[in-house]
Amino acid sequence: MLLGSIEAGGTKFVCAVGDEDYRVKDRIQYPTTTPAETIQKAIDYFKQFSDLQAISVASFGPIEIRPEAERYGYITDTPKVGWANTNFLGMLKAAFDLPIYWTTDVNGSAYGEYILAREKDPNMSALTYYTIGTGVGAGTVLNGGFVGTLGHPEVGHVRLKRHPDDLDFKGICPYHGDCLEGLVSGPTFEARTGRKGETIPLTDHVWDIMAYYVAQAALQTTLHIRPQKIVFGGGVVSEAFLKKVRHEFAALLNDYQDVGKLDDYITMPLAAHNGSATIGDFALAYREVNQLVNQK
Amino acid sequence: MLLGSIEAGGTKFVCAVGDEDYRVKDRIQYPTTTPAETIQKAIDYFKQFSDLQAISVASFGPIEIRPEAERYGYITDTPKVGWANTNFLGMLKAAFDLPIYWTTDVNGSAYGEYILAREKDPNMSALTYYTIGTGVGAGTVLNGGFVGTLGHPEVGHVRLKRHPDDLDFKGICPYHGDCLEGLVSGPTFEARTGRKGETIPLTDHVWDIMAYYVAQAALQTTLHIRPQKIVFGGGVVSEAFLKKVRHEFAALLNDYQDVGKLDDYITMPLAAHNGSATIGDFALAYREVNQLVNQK
Repeated sequence: MLLGSIEAGGTKFVCAVGDEDYRVKDRIQYPTTTPAETIQKAIDYFKQFSDLQAISVASFGPIEIRPEAERYGYITDTPKVGWANTNFLGMLKAAFDLPIYWTTDVNGSAYGEYILAREKDPNMSALTYYTIGTGVGAGTVLNGGFVGTLGHPEVGHVRLKRHPDDLDFKGICPYHGDCLEGLVSGPTFEARTGRKGETIPLTDHVWDIMAYYVAQAALQTTLHIRPQKIVFGGGVVSEAFLKKVRHEFAALLNDYQDVGKLDDYITMPLAAHNGSATIGDFALAYREVNQLVNQK
Repeated sequence: MLLGSIEAGGTKFVCAVGDEDYRVKDRIQYPTTTPAETIQKAIDYFKQFSDLQAISVASFGPIEIRPEAERYGYITDTPKVGWANTNFLGMLKAAFDLPIYWTTDVNGSAYGEYILAREKDPNMSALTYYTIGTGVGAGTVLNGGFVGTLGHPEVGHVRLKRHPDDLDFKGICPYHGDCLEGLVSGPTFEARTGRKGETIPLTDHVWDIMAYYVAQAALQTTLHIRPQKIVFGGGVVSEAFLKKVRHEFAALLNDYQDVGKLDDYITMPLAAHNGSATIGDFALAYREVNQLVNQK
């Protein structure tokens, strides 16, 4: 069976086809330009595969994910120039007579990590995936579905207890200043230090401050949702950084809840090469095909 | 059909019987003393009703809610003297050959409010209930189940951005100092002002500080879970206080997400006289009976 994945990012698109074992058969990536040009490239790509069975899209947002909503399938009011109010799903549906699943980038990644985690632990039923990169967001898989009823989560904009050594930093979120994204997204390194994050060694104190905030996000997820696993991806994240995050998390939780072994609870993605969303898309596309078969 | 409810609080127990329309037929309440005495009183109460079909328990905690866990049905490591490691569900099961549902106090209340909200809006499928009283906690109903896989949520212990006029207050949580519960539970009034909360008029600035923190909790719930409604109960909460909370919430959210009309989104309980948990228990007990019937 041939399944399609679109990982639609604000910077680049990754389109891929794969099989029901989530193996990538072919893959392209290209920069995100205008909606018309960028989405047409995806359509042209998938048109090559006449035996394609379904497509799943993991898109940057905010997007409308409620099937009953008027603008279901749209990228809604994104600040990204030209992309607000784009009927992404509608353009795909006009081009393909196939089931197409539509969700957020982080939901796609969460689903991919959930699928991989289940291979190791069949009891896995609740997993949260965070991305800490240019932006910050999270998606949660719970009992096979996604958390988010009035719309998708926007965890990047919660407020946090400020680190005592970071009280003067105003944060960089244009909407909220010092929300999570305003405090820990990639561009905060330059805003704080004048240097890019990748040039700053992990021994620099700014990384302790970052870890304190990311640990609070993990604490919120733990205490609100109690998933079995929290996965961190995105350009800011490394295993060495997560060591710091676990340390701060343990101090914040103070043994109040049992989350099992911290090394298994707060982890890097299982998917190699940022492939979580592509695997998630294949699995969601496969699910669409099966649901269609079961309905018949 | 006769259904039983135990609302097991750290201060008092409320036991009631009611019907499948969630009408209370009989009700007693008594102070929480030792586990043996307090639970036996509940058993003696329900023994009067020979036609009882099922019982549901909404208990203070922390409790073990995972059916596969060794201590399922226990109150686990509560600081309440004498109650740690109490096999609450086991004592009930030894006394009654009936289906017994077991969940947290706030989950019971959340379920009751969900049932009542569905009577007004059949599309209601995700609701969070907070209690702000002696302690602080929340439960979320999502698609008919409860959020919480590794255990139940413990929202009371998240961290918050501190109010600029409250930076010197250390918070009163013995585990975490200035977590949500440490900043807004009922006893914080005395810790901050030397006076009991009920004697402090809503015009006092301490209520603005409280509203800022409670609004952050509502913001976290919104951005992590995106329920359709957030209900606040507990001794600290009043409609006048929630007006302040909505005001702070709107400022924090800054129109980043659409949550509909705020007056319908952040609300007092629909159940009168703190009856949310009793209604939730009746509904959960009724569900247990139906599941048993369907299995046959």
